[in-house]
Amino acid sequence: MPLVDQAPITLTTFGWVPPFARGQVRDLRVRWALEEIGADYAVRTVGPVPPGYEREQPFLQVPAYREGELQLFESGAIVQHIGEKDERLLPRDPVARARAVQWSYAALNSVEPFLMAYAALGAFYPDEEWARLRKPSAKEELRKRLSRVAEWLGDRQWLEGDRFTIGDLLMIAVLRILGDEGGLIADFPTLDAYRARGVARPAFQRALADQLALYADKPRGEAA
Amino acid sequence: MPLVDQAPITLTTFGWVPPFARGQVRDLRVRWALEEIGADYAVRTVGPVPPGYEREQPFLQVPAYREGELQLFESGAIVQHIGEKDERLLPRDPVARARAVQWSYAALNSVEPFLMAYAALGAFYPDEEWARLRKPSAKEELRKRLSRVAEWLGDRQWLEGDRFTIGDLLMIAVLRILGDEGGLIADFPTLDAYRARGVARPAFQRALADQLALYADKPRGEAA
Repeated sequence: MPLVDQAPITLTTFGWVPPFARGQVRDLRVRWALEEIGADYAVRTVGPVPPGYEREQPFLQVPAYREGELQLFESGAIVQHIGEKDERLLPRDPVARARAVQWSYAALNSVEPFLMAYAALGAFYPDEEWARLRKPSAKEELRKRLSRVAEWLGDRQWLEGDRFTIGDLLMIAVLRILGDEGGLIADFPTLDAYRARGVARPAFQRALADQLALYADKPRGEAA
Repeated sequence: MPLVDQAPITLTTFGWVPPFARGQVRDLRVRWALEEIGADYAVRTVGPVPPGYEREQPFLQVPAYREGELQLFESGAIVQHIGEKDERLLPRDPVARARAVQWSYAALNSVEPFLMAYAALGAFYPDEEWARLRKPSAKEELRKRLSRVAEWLGDRQWLEGDRFTIGDLLMIAVLRILGDEGGLIADFPTLDAYRARGVARPAFQRALADQLALYADKPRGEAA
């Protein structure tokens, strides 16, 4: 199991998050990538963030990543960095590689903002009048994005065919934010099946179990 | 001048956009990167998009990029691909390289969504009640993000010190979406100066002039 006490890679995440965030903390994407290539990593927890943390993670979020002298934040960039280590995540062929990187950016810039704009209405602004009024148009804008990804996928197994890449990892991690409620993903059977293929991967299941285990004995209603 | 009639690189963009979008079409980021390394490129215009365009750009947007057998969409990924060609945009040292890629993702996933969420209120939903109610919180969320980037910058010339990279190119392109109205960027003098340094680069100025020239003789009120 790649999660160990001492390792060349240290992943920093929050030691406590509210129950609704458990299984959704962004370190999951990095854990998943590390599991896919079987790289050992140790976990360091923070919260509240220690003095000087802004030099590791300027937005004061997680994850942060350290590997020797390399310190990184931003889960997409960390996943790409892990991909560089192993062609099981990022092909060596220049064209296939650029296409995989393309889908990584697409997941995080052309899909996630629309998905978060919709998901945030219920998660972060449940009592706001503007959120109630905004919901139909946010849902429609997200639906259009999802329909474009679904159309691209068609009967492909993964975004670029039969090889899983960092682009799939990030796209599936983004699609998973939505949960199964609301029927948005379910409206697109190819997308629903694609997401299901992704989360069924043993590496994802190990990553998710390890994130959930970190919070399993933590209080639900307050910071530890 | 890298913009030529025939070149190994073809950049696809819209042949017409409304006046408010001129100077903001996302092909600008790619033009800028190509100008920084002096790579020749040709422009192909579309609009309405031709049949089959979804295979080039699944979201039916611009830019799309072709270089031999490589076809790419997603401006961040295209800029990174161009960076791979030339260490003036993407350092060869592995640590410096990963940090530059990190800032590219940060610009597009940790800053742009908050900036667009705010900018879109006035640009796309000027008459919506929800947009009026949403504006104060969207502005505050954006301000927090900008303050984090400003604090990181401190007295650095560029995000990683004295070398301009793809991370700066994308961050400055994102910051430039906001315009000078509203005072948000101006509230952070280091950020304001950083953006000004970026747009003063001759490569940016050439890229902007070429995008504006494309639309200069186009009707303002309807598609050509």
